[in-house]
This record gives sequence, C-alpha cells and structure tokens, in this order.
Amino acid sequence: MTNFQSEATVGDLGEQGILDAILPLLDSSKASLGPGDDAGALRVRGEEVLVSVDTLVENQDFRLIWPSGQEHKAYDIGWKSIAQNVSDINAMGGKATGAVISLSLPESTALDWVKDLAQGVTDAIKYLGAQELTVLGGDLGKASEISVTTTVLGETEHGRVLRSGAQSGDLIAIAGHVGDAGAGLDVLEHHGDSAKWNRAVRRLVAGQCRPTPPLGSGPRAAESGAHALMDVSDGLIRDSSRLAKASGVSIDFDLQVLAKFAERLKPAATLTGHDPMKWVLHGGEDFGLLAVFGKDAKIPEEFTVIGKVTARSGRRSMVTVDGKPAAAKDGFDHFS
Amino acid sequence: MTNFQSEATVGDLGEQGILDAILPLLDSSKASLGPGDDAGALRVRGEEVLVSVDTLVENQDFRLIWPSGQEHKAYDIGWKSIAQNVSDINAMGGKATGAVISLSLPESTALDWVKDLAQGVTDAIKYLGAQELTVLGGDLGKASEISVTTTVLGETEHGRVLRSGAQSGDLIAIAGHVGDAGAGLDVLEHHGDSAKWNRAVRRLVAGQCRPTPPLGSGPRAAESGAHALMDVSDGLIRDSSRLAKASGVSIDFDLQVLAKFAERLKPAATLTGHDPMKWVLHGGEDFGLLAVFGKDAKIPEEFTVIGKVTARSGRRSMVTVDGKPAAAKDGFDHFS
Repeated sequence: MTNFQSEATVGDLGEQGILDAILPLLDSSKASLGPGDDAGALRVRGEEVLVSVDTLVENQDFRLIWPSGQEHKAYDIGWKSIAQNVSDINAMGGKATGAVISLSLPESTALDWVKDLAQGVTDAIKYLGAQELTVLGGDLGKASEISVTTTVLGETEHGRVLRSGAQSGDLIAIAGHVGDAGAGLDVLEHHGDSAKWNRAVRRLVAGQCRPTPPLGSGPRAAESGAHALMDVSDGLIRDSSRLAKASGVSIDFDLQVLAKFAERLKPAATLTGHDPMKWVLHGGEDFGLLAVFGKDAKIPEEFTVIGKVTARSGRRSMVTVDGKPAAAKDGFDHFS
Repeated sequence: MTNFQSEATVGDLGEQGILDAILPLLDSSKASLGPGDDAGALRVRGEEVLVSVDTLVENQDFRLIWPSGQEHKAYDIGWKSIAQNVSDINAMGGKATGAVISLSLPESTALDWVKDLAQGVTDAIKYLGAQELTVLGGDLGKASEISVTTTVLGETEHGRVLRSGAQSGDLIAIAGHVGDAGAGLDVLEHHGDSAKWNRAVRRLVAGQCRPTPPLGSGPRAAESGAHALMDVSDGLIRDSSRLAKASGVSIDFDLQVLAKFAERLKPAATLTGHDPMKWVLHGGEDFGLLAVFGKDAKIPEEFTVIGKVTARSGRRSMVTVDGKPAAAKDGFDHFS
C-alpha cells in the first residue's frame, strides 16, 4: 500500500539512496548496458543504440524569472534540454541520432512561448554540431508547472567508453567549459539589476542558460583510446568521484591547472563575492567532458590535462587536489 | 522575447493546434518516420528503431486520492506508464525492447511509494507479455508534482504499420478492451464509498488503473497484412477519426457490434447514471488496438470486426455509426 507516512522520503535519501532502493526492483538484465553510466544501451540486431533521458522542471532546473530580474527564455530551456542529453551521448564516445521530447505545460502557457522553445531545440542541434540528430516525435500534456523531458538516442563508431575504465597511472583531462554555468547560476540567483552585467558576466550567464558541451570530443577521445569518459553535469569533484569509484581508483587534480579555469570566472566573483574556485570544483551544468587517457595516448588537442589517476590507498576511492581531500558534497544532488 | 501576454495560449489551441505550430520549427527530415503516428522511427545502420514517449502527471492523468475515496497506487502509475508506451509500439506492429524512465518527485514522497512504482513497472512488463523489454536507465529529479515520463524503444519483424494505409472496402477491427477504462474513470471521479463497488465495477476501475493493451496483436496483425494500425488512447471515435484522416477515407461502425462492448460496462452505468455507449465511443486509455484489414485477409482471432472503411464522399473524412455522424469532440484532448 502507498504510505506517505513512511519514515524515509526521497528528500532524506538523495539520488543515490533512491537508486539503490529501486534499481534492484527493475529488470535490466537484458540491457547491453543498464543504469549507472551517462547513458544506457540496447542492442538492435547487433547494432548498439545508446539512450539518455533528462527532465528540466520549472523552479528546480530553471526559473521563469530569476532573482536577478533576468527572464529565462523558453528558447534556452529547449536548448539546454538538447544540450544535456547530447552531452550524455558524447560522454559515451557516441553521436546523437534521434530525440523525442515530452512537454508538460500549464494551459495558460502562450503558444509563442512553446514556439520559442521549439526554436531553441532546433538551434541547439545546429549550433552544437549535432547534425545527425533528428526529432522523431514527442508527447504534449497539461501540468501545473512546466516540465520538459528529452530522450536522445545515439550510436558509437569506435565503441562506447564507460566511467569505469580509468587505471592507475592514467591522466585525466577535460574538454569544454568548467565553472561557467555555476558562476552564471550564482549571478542569476543572487544579484539584481541584470542591466549592469558586463560582457564577461553575460557570457557566464549564457554558460548556464545555453551550455555548449564539446560534441565531437567524445568520439575523438574514444578514437584516441580513452580509458574512461564522463560529462560534468553535477560538478567536477562530485562527478570525478563517481568516475573514481566506478573505476576503483583515486584521482588527484593539479590545483595550478584548475586555477587557470577560475580566471575567466573572476568577473562573476567580483559581482557576487564568491571564490571562483568554488565554481571550478563544484559548479555543474557546463557539460564539459572528462576523459581519462593512458599516459602515452595521443590526447586530442582540445583537452587540458588536469590531474592524474592513482591507485587507491585503502578501500575508498579518493579525489584530491594537490593531495588534499576535496569534499564532493558541494556538488549538485537533486534531492539534497 | 517570451511573451505571456500573447493572445493564444496552449489551452486555447488544443493538442493539434500546438503541434501544427511547433512541428514546422523542428527538423524531422532525417527521421525514418517523424512525428504523427503512434511512434517515431529511426534507422540505426539499416535497422529501424521505433520510439515512443508518454508522460503521466499528477492531477492530470491520475489523482493520488480520487473523489470516490479510492487511493491511486504508485504501482498503478508505474504499470500505466509502461502500458501506454508498449501499446504505441504494438500499434506500429512492433515489440518493445527497451525503456528509460524519468521520475520527477516532491521531496516528501515516501521511498516506499517510489519502490511501489518500480514494482508496477516490472510487473507490467511481465504480465503484459513484454518480455523483451528491459530498463536501460532513467533520470530522477525534484518537482512540486509527481510526473513520470517513459520512453520505450521497439523493433518490428514484419515492417511497421502506419495509420495511413486504410483503403475503401477494408474492414476495421479491434483487439483488447474498449470502454472499460472510461467507465472506470467515471466511477473513480464521481462516486464515493468505493467499499460498495461490486466485482464487475472493480474490474472496470482496474481497466483504468492497470490497462492491458493486447501485446502480440500488433505484430500478428502486421503479419496478417494489416493495412493500418493505431491504438485507442483518446477514444474510439476520436482516434478512428485520426486514422480516417491520415488514410484519406471514411469509416462506418456497426452499432450492434459496438453495443456488445457496452454490455460489460452496465454495472458502472447503473452506479453512475451514464449511458455505457458513451464509454465505448469516447472512453480512452484502454489501449485497445484498432486494425484495418483487406476484406479477404485472415484476421487474427482476437480481433472483432466493428465496421468498414468507405470512400470519402467529399474532401472530409467522416466517422459514422450505422451511417450517422459521430462527434469526435467527446474524446480526450489534453488541452481542451
């Protein structure tokens, strides 16, 4: 029987706690790749199909009006819904090929708003370079809050690359942005008078609203023999901790290299009073691509090596920065 | 710019009006089959993959507590989320092979509730006979109302069957239930004291909460050379009008045959005071399978012939019952 009086709620448990409880109830035994990586996979008469799904919900993943006074455009919601899913396919070393989109909307939503969202979907596909992605269909329904769920299918040419293949002695590198979206979020959340934002700040806000995962870098990394791939959606430390755990290794980042990523975040730091390193270490939603390469690999040039993979000293995977433990808890968890 | 003051809202336009406005903005040119049928389709190195998505939203598609006092079980939400999507694949003549599920939940949701939903997913896959369906992954996020979006992938053995292939002179038939779910919905919506429901009424309520699309009938109909297939999700008249329009034909149903489907609905009619034919003609969500066969086809035995396909007399496709026009407007539209 349904029991709302049960002691444990999803809010108490966090994402991983919920998954640990429900995954054993779901049968994934026939999947080519079940839950737990950036995307799942299925074989269709010998060919592997990658599948990823993500939902954006009003007042959780975006606000129609931010505390800064900035309006969140439907266009940007459409853009992000595509970006975060094609990023998951990219993070398997694959290319996105098809999408279905389910829109739940209040009746009062303006038709122009929905058209703007559709345009954002189309432009994201084009400008992110997902030219092989086509919209296959969707669903449309009523709700009291806006919710957009996009499912993207993809395929790989060089085989899929998981989170779990990192080995001691490997190098860990990143392509794309890191920290921009987190800085942009703090600007949107906390600071009034968006008219005063300078160009550098506006660029960081754009990083939050229209993220640009480095498509193509996934397949290139796979072709270069990457041992592990994962996109950074919940923060560098949190996501690399997941990669480390899945691979049974530890990771040590180079503070000096990470500090370079903080440079471009300074205009937001000046405005908000935050330490820009917070955004580099814990900011999510840039959808940069983490890749782990063997130390002799030819690493594609868009990647910056930011650390190294080490053997675990005990039974726990550790993520450190210049040898000092980094707390993962500051990253993003939907239920904490 | 987003403009909530625009005159037209999605509530004004209805599903078709919204689709007419946004589909031209989305690029579906590379799809093997774009939006407009029960599912879309994509080619993966020569193999066709069917894709369908549907969302269930609290207070729109189900209520946690119905006016009848009946509680809606999470188990049933999980069940229906699978049922309606595997039905779409069935209605292409295909078999479901993989699913991803996105759950949006209030923080206060009990973990037991989520586990119950997962069990409903697993049991629907098993009891509906979708044994080849495996769960590939999903997404988990916070929302102020419960929302479940399931995307199902599938494949066909005998080629996909669209809505658009019906020809004048064909027979139209149905497999599975029709009217049960609509009768069950009226019982749930309007009548207190669920303790007084007899077994026949409880069976109709189960038809609403745990619908049973006739899986297997889609591939069998395809193998028998069905000219058109479509599942009845929004009502027999509304959905057959869509089929007629897509095929450029008219359809005439046999009242006497349809009346037989009304028989089993009488216990709900007695309780609610409704005419049971309303549910046969306009009740949705049974996910019965409409199939159109050439008049010499060997029709699989689980199908009941309920009418015939005729040439249009003018430019409009008509749906009639014993020659009298049937109004489609009583069926279900998410935005009217």
